[in-house]
Amino acid sequence: RINGERLWKSLMDLAAIGATEKGGVKRLALTDLDRQGRDLVVKWAREAGLSITVDQIGNVFMRREGRNPALPPIVTGSHVDTQPTGGKFDGNYGVLAGLEVVRTLNDQGIQTEAPIEVAFWTNEEGSRFVPVMMGSGVFCGAFSLETAYAAVDTEGRSVREELARIGYLGDQVPGQHPIGAYFETHIEQGPVLEDADKVIGVVPAVMGLSWYDCTVTGMEAHAGPTPMGLRRDALQVATAIMQEVVSIANRYPPYGRGTVGMVEVFPNSRNVIPGRVKFSIDLRNVNEALLNTMHEEMLAFVARTRTESGLGIEVERVSYYPPCPFHPDCVEAVRAATDKLGYSTMDVVSGAGHDAIYAARVAPSGMIFVPCKDGISHNEIEDAQPAHLEAGCNVLLHAMLARAGR
Amino acid sequence: RINGERLWKSLMDLAAIGATEKGGVKRLALTDLDRQGRDLVVKWAREAGLSITVDQIGNVFMRREGRNPALPPIVTGSHVDTQPTGGKFDGNYGVLAGLEVVRTLNDQGIQTEAPIEVAFWTNEEGSRFVPVMMGSGVFCGAFSLETAYAAVDTEGRSVREELARIGYLGDQVPGQHPIGAYFETHIEQGPVLEDADKVIGVVPAVMGLSWYDCTVTGMEAHAGPTPMGLRRDALQVATAIMQEVVSIANRYPPYGRGTVGMVEVFPNSRNVIPGRVKFSIDLRNVNEALLNTMHEEMLAFVARTRTESGLGIEVERVSYYPPCPFHPDCVEAVRAATDKLGYSTMDVVSGAGHDAIYAARVAPSGMIFVPCKDGISHNEIEDAQPAHLEAGCNVLLHAMLARAGR
Ligand SMILES: NC(=O)NCCC(=O)O
Ligand SMILES: NC(=O)NCCC(=O)O
Repeated sequence: RINGERLWKSLMDLAAIGATEKGGVKRLALTDLDRQGRDLVVKWAREAGLSITVDQIGNVFMRREGRNPALPPIVTGSHVDTQPTGGKFDGNYGVLAGLEVVRTLNDQGIQTEAPIEVAFWTNEEGSRFVPVMMGSGVFCGAFSLETAYAAVDTEGRSVREELARIGYLGDQVPGQHPIGAYFETHIEQGPVLEDADKVIGVVPAVMGLSWYDCTVTGMEAHAGPTPMGLRRDALQVATAIMQEVVSIANRYPPYGRGTVGMVEVFPNSRNVIPGRVKFSIDLRNVNEALLNTMHEEMLAFVARTRTESGLGIEVERVSYYPPCPFHPDCVEAVRAATDKLGYSTMDVVSGAGHDAIYAARVAPSGMIFVPCKDGISHNEIEDAQPAHLEAGCNVLLHAMLARAGR
Repeated sequence: RINGERLWKSLMDLAAIGATEKGGVKRLALTDLDRQGRDLVVKWAREAGLSITVDQIGNVFMRREGRNPALPPIVTGSHVDTQPTGGKFDGNYGVLAGLEVVRTLNDQGIQTEAPIEVAFWTNEEGSRFVPVMMGSGVFCGAFSLETAYAAVDTEGRSVREELARIGYLGDQVPGQHPIGAYFETHIEQGPVLEDADKVIGVVPAVMGLSWYDCTVTGMEAHAGPTPMGLRRDALQVATAIMQEVVSIANRYPPYGRGTVGMVEVFPNSRNVIPGRVKFSIDLRNVNEALLNTMHEEMLAFVARTRTESGLGIEVERVSYYPPCPFHPDCVEAVRAATDKLGYSTMDVVSGAGHDAIYAARVAPSGMIFVPCKDGISHNEIEDAQPAHLEAGCNVLLHAMLARAGR
């Protein structure tokens, strides 16, 4: 069993770096604060006897040698960067749970057959630089190192120069680091476990995601003198599409998701009929065929609306990854560890993307969820119970031990 | 008949002050540019032999004496301030048409029985300082001089200090200036005349207007892990209300108007379910009972939606003026002048608010509309034909002569 108090203390110490007034953390990828966070974790890892490797995209692997160094390591990890209004647990928990597993093995003098590694991946959040899940994405070849290097923040600073500046531009070619199996613990970021009053979520899969930008173009005109029948009201047409995005998701329960999160209205003046509305569409499903059906239904609705309204409507897909079922062996390892430890449990499909979906492209992978308060994440009020974080870490310990061999 | 070329030249000369690259004008109320615009009009008025009075809210009255100075003057006018992305004609046309009437009377040596005055009212647009139609509003007592003085721009400068700074803080108590009758020429700011291919719009009335701020409060949550059934999606609820605003207006043709022009979404992030949406509602009708019905239907829909969704919805009325029917004598004077001159004509209810609705509270009033290109206004591409502007000015001349007596 791991030491829950030590885990909690490490979480709080790390959360002090970039702590916000409202109790959250702001530690954007590749900033000075990210460096401080990374340095603290690396210092702790060295103190625990781990050796450090950094790859060219700044992913960090912290290794505890196995009896058989030729075996590929059993890896766990997550990320230490946060959202601009982020919490203490998102990502950070997965990294420090891995460190706690290592500390526990040290305490107990347990040597594993395969090496054990704790990783943290660069820029999972995608808040400062896109694409999201950058480090793991480059690692598994989802996109190139050049693409990632070229990404710039709003002030024009590139990923490559910021990696060099904070001292995390490593030598190793991403993806050349072997992985025997990958486990990631994470807060659920949703309300399912809390609603069902369960401690451990076994994650069979992560939903596929399809992101779009939609722009409706009508004609700006004065809200008073323009008769209803002569209007080309971009917002009226856009809101019909926004309603449909939610309806589409509702037609595909339980794993259909449809969200409009971002809206810009031009010129955004009280007495001007909007001439242009730009908004985001986020569709998700755990079933690839259904996600594709949702995609087709959305495009069909847009086409119909375009014809009926006569307005210009453009939809551009800006991100896509398919659903990611985790490897049955890893899912079963998590389930077995949970049962052995006697925690209440249920399967929880992940609605959020995680580094594990990219790791899963190069190695058998699995995830362990624990509840977070009110299901809230990406928010400074994000919170989790020490007992739940401890339970997830115990499950991680036993799943990794089962896989690495004692 | 007035001199159309002279009118056009004055319009273009005035439009040079604050001219924008896209061919529009940016001359916000009480700025240095507004002063330059005011000074040019006052200089032209002096050259035409008019005497100048400025009141305490900066309204300017430029007087041509009548045979009977004891009679209240027949007044025409509008405003010289513009929107931030305004055009050359909105307001400015009404002032310079008045000046052209005076110049024509001078050319022809016509003396009127009652005095003739050309007025420009302070801050009609309301872009820099609210409330809109400030000068005429104070003049007729719709709100107090103190309220207007206290209005500040986004940089904290008040109406009173800006009036003093640009030299237009006059002595006369607003409203103590007598008005025998008021006429205002204006571009239509809508597409009705152009669609019907008519030159002169006789304006029987201005629609009443009711403005609201609506705020829907749900709960921010992650777009992926949050099941559809557990969401409190503020945008989903807000867009239903936005659709209804348009539906309500469509139920009351031909003069119902419903517009949502301004929308703000929080936190406005692609993968976060919106926790709060704030938007404007603009309802108009020329019939006060119907405008009230529209108001009630909107509130009823909001109440129903609040109950059904369980989300917080607040609606606050932020502006209201009732429909303003113009005085039958003034409407008839405009119609008679139009018929006499042989211009094609139709009645056009004004959907936009104008200084004339406040003038109408203290004197018989009427308006004359001319077409503007594609019905577009509050836009740098606002345009109008010289022949139409000339026609409107001729109608103004004859309507004023009929009222003032030769
Ligand atoms: N975990 C997480 O928030 N990932 C970002 C991508 C997503 O929206 O799922
Ligand atoms: N003429 C004009 O645009 N007035 C402003 C108030 C309104 O929206 O009608």
